[in-house]
Amino acid sequence: MPKIDLDAIEATNRTTYPMPFAAEMGGRWFRRLGPPSGLTDFGASHVRLEPGAISSQRHWHDEIDEFLVMTSGEAVLVEEGAETVLRPGDCAAFPKGVANGHHLVNRAGEDCTFVVMGTPDRGHCHYPDVDLEWDSEAKTYRHKDGAPY
Amino acid sequence: MPKIDLDAIEATNRTTYPMPFAAEMGGRWFRRLGPPSGLTDFGASHVRLEPGAISSQRHWHDEIDEFLVMTSGEAVLVEEGAETVLRPGDCAAFPKGVANGHHLVNRAGEDCTFVVMGTPDRGHCHYPDVDLEWDSEAKTYRHKDGAPY
Repeated sequence: MPKIDLDAIEATNRTTYPMPFAAEMGGRWFRRLGPPSGLTDFGASHVRLEPGAISSQRHWHDEIDEFLVMTSGEAVLVEEGAETVLRPGDCAAFPKGVANGHHLVNRAGEDCTFVVMGTPDRGHCHYPDVDLEWDSEAKTYRHKDGAPY
Repeated sequence: MPKIDLDAIEATNRTTYPMPFAAEMGGRWFRRLGPPSGLTDFGASHVRLEPGAISSQRHWHDEIDEFLVMTSGEAVLVEEGAETVLRPGDCAAFPKGVANGHHLVNRAGEDCTFVVMGTPDRGHCHYPDVDLEWDSEAKTYRHKDGAPY
């Protein structure tokens, strides 16, 4: 059936970030929607942020377009030099190669949810606030000086 | 700014369908979100259906993944042999090559809105209920016997 039974997909708060960045991700619960529904051209995830949680470390991708739709609650979209509140129905786009690190922060007292779509993993992901970089070809995180974690 | 100012994008009810199928599309108002926001890896549209409107003729794509997020109101997802009500926060996926024609119908008394993402146009689009087929290479609609409209 095309409608996705979200409750049938286990939500996880795992992360592939190395420490200490992984420690900040415990309040982000996500479900990957592509594999159970058969989508392969792009990825889609349903994400729930507990109060105080962040969607990711602030980042931008050089080869991945990202797009999100807010579905419940309220989150603050933090980007380079700006903050914007997102509410249900709001959409945000993060075209590849635009060096504008972004993430969502839940500063409200209730959970919020959103759905995020993206190009399948490729290229590098850059993290302006922390000593971290993702190399999708090597499938590894590195320090900014190139040293592995 | 990553947040998309939906009000700044003119909604249109145009359609490329030939008649008589075009005549059924007047209550579907959409905004293409990719071009104004810089997304190119996949398309995204914000769609509003007036009461009685349909999202498209019932169809399936052989080379395009489609994915939608319901954002307000209520719509009925009509697929091959089944109907499912979609409400805000519901997600639905339509993987390419699955011969399950689908569309949304607004049978409620109020507008509904959703956001739909998809692979950039390619391959063929098949319409099980009507004498119509889309050929993305030739950029043309044809009758099922191959004759042009």
